[in-house]
Amino acid sequence: MRIEQRLADLGLSLPDPPKLPPGTIVPFSFVRVHGNRALISGHGPLLSDGSLAEPLGKVGAEVTEEQGYLAARRTALAILSSLQRELGDLDRITAWVKVFGMVAVAPGFTGTLAVINGFSDVILELWGDRAGAHARSAVGLAELPFGIPVEIEGEVAIDDLR
Amino acid sequence: MRIEQRLADLGLSLPDPPKLPPGTIVPFSFVRVHGNRALISGHGPLLSDGSLAEPLGKVGAEVTEEQGYLAARRTALAILSSLQRELGDLDRITAWVKVFGMVAVAPGFTGTLAVINGFSDVILELWGDRAGAHARSAVGLAELPFGIPVEIEGEVAIDDLR
Amino acid sequence: MRIEQRLADLGLSLPDPPKLPPGTIVPFSFVRVHGNRALISGHGPLLSDGSLAEPLGKVGAEVTEEQGYLAARRTALAILSSLQRELGDLDRITAWVKVFGMVAVAPGFTGTLAVINGFSDVILELWGDRAGAHARSAVGLAELPFGIPVEIEGEVAIDDLR
Repeated sequence: MRIEQRLADLGLSLPDPPKLPPGTIVPFSFVRVHGNRALISGHGPLLSDGSLAEPLGKVGAEVTEEQGYLAARRTALAILSSLQRELGDLDRITAWVKVFGMVAVAPGFTGTLAVINGFSDVILELWGDRAGAHARSAVGLAELPFGIPVEIEGEVAIDDLR
Repeated sequence: MRIEQRLADLGLSLPDPPKLPPGTIVPFSFVRVHGNRALISGHGPLLSDGSLAEPLGKVGAEVTEEQGYLAARRTALAILSSLQRELGDLDRITAWVKVFGMVAVAPGFTGTLAVINGFSDVILELWGDRAGAHARSAVGLAELPFGIPVEIEGEVAIDDLR
Repeated sequence: MRIEQRLADLGLSLPDPPKLPPGTIVPFSFVRVHGNRALISGHGPLLSDGSLAEPLGKVGAEVTEEQGYLAARRTALAILSSLQRELGDLDRITAWVKVFGMVAVAPGFTGTLAVINGFSDVILELWGDRAGAHARSAVGLAELPFGIPVEIEGEVAIDDLR
């Protein structure tokens, strides 16, 4: 319960499971555990009730870089919420491994590193520089589902069930 | 031969190896096996003779969402064809792990989840909810090679050679 | 020192660590080692002093396909430089596993395979067809950080520290 304590210390809380728009079919797992790896599906920013957080749109147009950074922080919390449901306890995560950060961009917006830093900052605040270290890309996509401005997927290492 | 039987039961057949346009140089492996992992290169939709399936173009413009869904189904069969050649037997796949679905999109097309469901549906029809479960992202790209509307890569777990 | 010898034989040298534009915050690892895997963050083309190599821009507009190919070669050397710093010795790489090649594209540019071949060619020249074999995707993105024309991430297998 170490990570949950740190979340509380930082004043962060995890959102409910994603409530995607009516009619959305989800034939995949938000987190897929295989051996000591947990693969994380693409997640977007959620409000506390699990609905998609606004603003929607492209960073560099409807969404500012700062709002994009906050969306990436929210996306981190959405991912932690999925990991907690799947793993039972976030303390089972022994290492962050890989993060792929996608930003829906208006033409000419190249500040994608600063946007995805919202995600990395949350992970490092919670797991620190060693377990929280991760390889990462942060790139600009043409369109993301539902018009979300940020989508992030990744991989963590987990220890065996205790 | 369990999966091959299910393919036949579902009336599905696997295409020939990819026949890419003349002059295309392919210095990579369609499937790379390492230990108990098989990494799958980006594949697109193929006709039974291995040539690129039409329609080409962007989903939301030249290609409808429904045609995109069918392209994702065809892409699943192209990937299974590559896996069968590399592994010898699709029954060696013990689990689907990770799928990254890319859709070439016209501006404003955000229905990428529904398009890539064509891929996930084939995998779940064949492997079922447990072995077939996979983490996934489904996002909109600016351009894909040769103008294909869908490209999918991923990873499966395999057991040792029997 | 086998790979370093081959680099010298081929007349290739590795650039200094990335010197990103002032103000860039990098809260991630260029290479993340976990067990026998090394995950490689997205890298772009560098000059020998580690600064971003020009031309910047989109392949198919400001950057020609041939210049894109050269940028992908430079990106390979930037990645090898990061791997060497992290691993101590490039000979610890026992296999290339997975490469994800991203090209910043002008509308309509679909020759992304030929661009990313610049990367694969360097890897195969150095590691040969067996250890150098890799799964790969090569796709067109809307925008990349700093306006770089090519960004590549990937994964290699490493042996234990000797």
